[in-house]
Amino acid sequence: MKAFMDEDFLLQTEVAKKLYHDYAAKMPVLDYHCHINPREIAEDRQFENITQVWLGGDHYKWRFMRSCGVDEKYITGDASDKEKFMKWAECLGKAIGNPLYHWSHLELQRYFGFNGALSRKNAEEVWNLCNEKLTQPSMSARNIIKQSNVTLICTTDDPVDSLEWHKKIAEDDSFDVAVLPAWRPDKAMNLEKPDYTDYISKLSSVSGVAIKTFEDLKKALVIRIEFFASMGCCVSDHALEYVMYEPATDAQIEAIFAKAMAKETITRQEEMQFKTAFMTFVSGEYNKRNWVLQLHYGCKRDNNKPMFAKIGPDTGYDCINNYAPSAQTADFLNHLIEKDSLPKTILYSLNPNDNQAIGTILGCFQNSDAVAKIQQGSAWWFNDHKTGMQEQMISLANLGNLSGFVGMLTDSRSFLSYTRHEYFRRILCNLFGNWVENGEFPEDYDILGEIVQNISYNNAVNYFGFDMLK
Amino acid sequence: MKAFMDEDFLLQTEVAKKLYHDYAAKMPVLDYHCHINPREIAEDRQFENITQVWLGGDHYKWRFMRSCGVDEKYITGDASDKEKFMKWAECLGKAIGNPLYHWSHLELQRYFGFNGALSRKNAEEVWNLCNEKLTQPSMSARNIIKQSNVTLICTTDDPVDSLEWHKKIAEDDSFDVAVLPAWRPDKAMNLEKPDYTDYISKLSSVSGVAIKTFEDLKKALVIRIEFFASMGCCVSDHALEYVMYEPATDAQIEAIFAKAMAKETITRQEEMQFKTAFMTFVSGEYNKRNWVLQLHYGCKRDNNKPMFAKIGPDTGYDCINNYAPSAQTADFLNHLIEKDSLPKTILYSLNPNDNQAIGTILGCFQNSDAVAKIQQGSAWWFNDHKTGMQEQMISLANLGNLSGFVGMLTDSRSFLSYTRHEYFRRILCNLFGNWVENGEFPEDYDILGEIVQNISYNNAVNYFGFDMLK
Amino acid sequence: MKAFMDEDFLLQTEVAKKLYHDYAAKMPVLDYHCHINPREIAEDRQFENITQVWLGGDHYKWRFMRSCGVDEKYITGDASDKEKFMKWAECLGKAIGNPLYHWSHLELQRYFGFNGALSRKNAEEVWNLCNEKLTQPSMSARNIIKQSNVTLICTTDDPVDSLEWHKKIAEDDSFDVAVLPAWRPDKAMNLEKPDYTDYISKLSSVSGVAIKTFEDLKKALVIRIEFFASMGCCVSDHALEYVMYEPATDAQIEAIFAKAMAKETITRQEEMQFKTAFMTFVSGEYNKRNWVLQLHYGCKRDNNKPMFAKIGPDTGYDCINNYAPSAQTADFLNHLIEKDSLPKTILYSLNPNDNQAIGTILGCFQNSDAVAKIQQGSAWWFNDHKTGMQEQMISLANLGNLSGFVGMLTDSRSFLSYTRHEYFRRILCNLFGNWVENGEFPEDYDILGEIVQNISYNNAVNYFGFDMLK
Repeated sequence: MKAFMDEDFLLQTEVAKKLYHDYAAKMPVLDYHCHINPREIAEDRQFENITQVWLGGDHYKWRFMRSCGVDEKYITGDASDKEKFMKWAECLGKAIGNPLYHWSHLELQRYFGFNGALSRKNAEEVWNLCNEKLTQPSMSARNIIKQSNVTLICTTDDPVDSLEWHKKIAEDDSFDVAVLPAWRPDKAMNLEKPDYTDYISKLSSVSGVAIKTFEDLKKALVIRIEFFASMGCCVSDHALEYVMYEPATDAQIEAIFAKAMAKETITRQEEMQFKTAFMTFVSGEYNKRNWVLQLHYGCKRDNNKPMFAKIGPDTGYDCINNYAPSAQTADFLNHLIEKDSLPKTILYSLNPNDNQAIGTILGCFQNSDAVAKIQQGSAWWFNDHKTGMQEQMISLANLGNLSGFVGMLTDSRSFLSYTRHEYFRRILCNLFGNWVENGEFPEDYDILGEIVQNISYNNAVNYFGFDMLK
Repeated sequence: MKAFMDEDFLLQTEVAKKLYHDYAAKMPVLDYHCHINPREIAEDRQFENITQVWLGGDHYKWRFMRSCGVDEKYITGDASDKEKFMKWAECLGKAIGNPLYHWSHLELQRYFGFNGALSRKNAEEVWNLCNEKLTQPSMSARNIIKQSNVTLICTTDDPVDSLEWHKKIAEDDSFDVAVLPAWRPDKAMNLEKPDYTDYISKLSSVSGVAIKTFEDLKKALVIRIEFFASMGCCVSDHALEYVMYEPATDAQIEAIFAKAMAKETITRQEEMQFKTAFMTFVSGEYNKRNWVLQLHYGCKRDNNKPMFAKIGPDTGYDCINNYAPSAQTADFLNHLIEKDSLPKTILYSLNPNDNQAIGTILGCFQNSDAVAKIQQGSAWWFNDHKTGMQEQMISLANLGNLSGFVGMLTDSRSFLSYTRHEYFRRILCNLFGNWVENGEFPEDYDILGEIVQNISYNNAVNYFGFDMLK
Repeated sequence: MKAFMDEDFLLQTEVAKKLYHDYAAKMPVLDYHCHINPREIAEDRQFENITQVWLGGDHYKWRFMRSCGVDEKYITGDASDKEKFMKWAECLGKAIGNPLYHWSHLELQRYFGFNGALSRKNAEEVWNLCNEKLTQPSMSARNIIKQSNVTLICTTDDPVDSLEWHKKIAEDDSFDVAVLPAWRPDKAMNLEKPDYTDYISKLSSVSGVAIKTFEDLKKALVIRIEFFASMGCCVSDHALEYVMYEPATDAQIEAIFAKAMAKETITRQEEMQFKTAFMTFVSGEYNKRNWVLQLHYGCKRDNNKPMFAKIGPDTGYDCINNYAPSAQTADFLNHLIEKDSLPKTILYSLNPNDNQAIGTILGCFQNSDAVAKIQQGSAWWFNDHKTGMQEQMISLANLGNLSGFVGMLTDSRSFLSYTRHEYFRRILCNLFGNWVENGEFPEDYDILGEIVQNISYNNAVNYFGFDMLK
């Protein structure tokens, strides 16, 4: 029996151990997609207690607590931080098979030196241990990042954002980790939302372009894209229901936009036509600038309306939307390639059943612009666990070029999540170890080690084109 | 090599063996969903031969025999019981990888003391052995139930059912296993069916409410729900194509119902609107009474019309319907929660691809009303095998709270199927054993044993709220 | 650790080794579905170099090279054969987890006696070794087939094909492997295509029937079916988007056909109605003649239009189409059975998520016409790898009669692909070995060996009804 989460956690073979310890573990972390608040880095936030770090904004944990029948008071309500932690510890103790079990214990091990198994029994001890540790300067936001061997972080930012905190960080010579913005213009696209015109007003104001037409919107977006680029941005991100393709004429698009600006009701088809046009336009802009297009889809958000009314979005009420026609995804990418507008693209679906369809779509649009120009993103959100990562990598390997994969990201709001890169690398090395152990690939560490290090770090550097000598 | 189906069947690790033998095996069986005929319990049926028990109504076995090219004569036709058994034994001998192989051999081992492998060669011997055993009083319906350590059974019953056999069983002090009805009002909902008005007439008659409107139908249903409740019922069951959400006004629903009662043709949209209204109403009634809502969906039934004409429904001609939009499922549950009408709910899809969508939907509607208030049901029907159960539990663990899972049910028409609870528990313990063995969870039998016993039995007692002291 | 791809490649247990070496390996190969050019057999083509054999028409390899960022020049462009091979060797060296890695090395081992791992380092050596070997008479098309222990090959042929090369081969007594045509009438069905009327003209000419109506088309098809039958054909093949069921009257079908012949635009519904009628008709004809209906679906082809314009179809730009409603598939098969027109049928979906839906559909239409009359085809195209084959066989075993499975085919354009039968058999034997090793099936080699040999070869002989004594 393997010991509980020891140094060889998830490494089932000697090959896996060698690959992880000798090759993967030493690579730095490039976190090209997360939801960290740059202000907390700029101000080098120090946390008061483990509840703030762990339960402050972590809707994964909230969901799990609700599944255990915990009252909302102890989740997002007015219970004390300590009460919340105690409830969480009790829930975690039963979380067999859930990725939170491994994430939490990796964080307790790496950042707090606690190697036991958290449960109701030792919750008090862990509460004290963590909180004491958190008072130390080594546990400030910046120092957590540094000790995690992170070289670069991409946050997620709206086109109207001033990026003031990114500026402050860039100007601060005492912190040499790159913290770059990523461009996420969902609000500029979602014209079916009731606050769309308000958003467009903001964008008008920030860009200096009075937006009356879709042509104006494009101009405003380009101005902001240029601003983001000047701040080092080279990554975009889009949240879509699915990757749609509903072509329409320029005149139709302008008419739809005009309706939206007049607050008239938009049909579902008009919505999809507009979004197709929007995505086509921004993709072309990304392609011109060698930016990466990230498409996150297959999610239905804010499903519990009473809770949404109480505590808002991103609070643990999202689910998989299983409608994602692969035909439209392929047609959209073809539309881009026909217009010479297809940028480097990463597809992430929340539905793991899409793995194979995505794997086969990638292959239709690869070329020599980049190694693995069209990528399948790392197992996302609800799939970010051992099963999900294994299945994503096995599918990608079966259908394409796993060796060119840009690998892991945290997608997290927490500074402690860098251990998910470790989690990923252990699973990657174990997968390789099993293949080699089974005689399916030669035990050649020159090749294996290079592929492991590329997927762990180098591929992302090369693919996104980051200048790591900053 | 492990011996063929010995006491450690499916238990690959020492942890798994300990968990199964020391914790799971001793728990009683609570079979909260099956299709057993209560009359056979009331009358304590004795079977004449193994064909009656095994092949009398088991469409799983029938399908398999047809796949082997066996003539229908030997399946549902006029061949003798012995001829049918001989054909079945021949087929079973080749059924490598099929759950029938394990189900049948577990039944032969536990109820008949036969530990070999049934095939054409020893069919005669097994035929004699089983039939001799079946003559013994210990093999009556009630005694099979008792020796299977069953404490409670929920049958499946129509709202118009008199529940006379349940009454007889309840009044009989010589049999202390609870046999409760479960409420399955499909016929009251399926207004697209040609015999809908006939059914409504029956319901009128039984309830004493002259049903002319949907309001009347609701009144009649409440009367019958109350009657079922008085008989100990606290579980409902619904067979749906998919969990739909098509909202409509009260007036629209009344108009649709009126059309159906006038035997006019109903559009597909009207059907879905009516069913949404029906499901919303009954769900609210269940919630008031703390009943459990069971939703079984993803099935397309009676696909072979010529065979349906000959031998009717539930004869082995059903398949997976892969249309089940998760967006509507989420919207329906939200609709219920908005109306404060969301009861404890168990979702079962026949399509294993729905595992992850369901797992993420659950999490959107959990709260402190119950531990794991919204459940994913145990791997159902075509998924009721090692692969299906493993995948359902791994998915549930990845996405939610496996420790709160209400676990197994037989869904069976046969009195010998209680061994499927054993099959499930072995798979559960093996899964846990593998995790512990791999260092993914501590080898702490206090926690592991408790979770195993809860999933095996206690969770179901607590979740459904059965009074086990009866 | 197992050695790299040695004689026990993929065989993880002693049972697996015994089953493979003592039972599976010695069976001949019956390749009932491939895309080999019969002319190359008739003329006994000799290849000049390994690039011609390996990279001449292999879009699997092309896709992989594009995923590695290789310029099209070295894939389908004007680089020299040696340059192309060098690029391929470099890509293959990194192809961890991809089936091409195993396919290529099995071919290098079995046909070229090279047991190393091909990579950039030894590419020159392998280039020379293979090319030298290819000059030998033992490596002509016919001799490759013979040394691969192939007894019968079905090619894929259009109804207008003269089958002249099949005739030549049949008349040549020096070559005793049966090379039969398979009937693939897609072009006669796809009336939405711009060149449909041109095709119909060709068919008119070849059949001698002036085709003006759908009735005429049927007559022409029957004439060609008879011709194919006279050439030994007993297998059809159809490429469908999905298995559709859109019923229409005869008059409607004639009207749709008339529109197509007049080059008027056909609606999507009309297209599906016509195709339903077409498929119904030909299925009835197959059933009369005891032919097998093969349905390949779930593919969206030629997605990259700029590349299609340059290098045409079948060049590596296809993907999974995930729209395949199981309800229509079941309704179509029921339609056939109601008309007494359901032939032996093999369903292949490109989407592995369809495995379970297919598995349950099969069971609805089995009868005593044949063992496993309705089959799920072997893991197809993008699924033709260890994961895909395992999942297809496990699903088939769970839901039906794996022992009746007709097994593997190459689906290939290359003469070296017969090793994929070996790959399949190793995976099959390993699966059985794991089951036996885990106590799930008895270690009875009479039964296991028979099932393995049947799936490897005998089932296909019996199912298709080939006369192997030719």
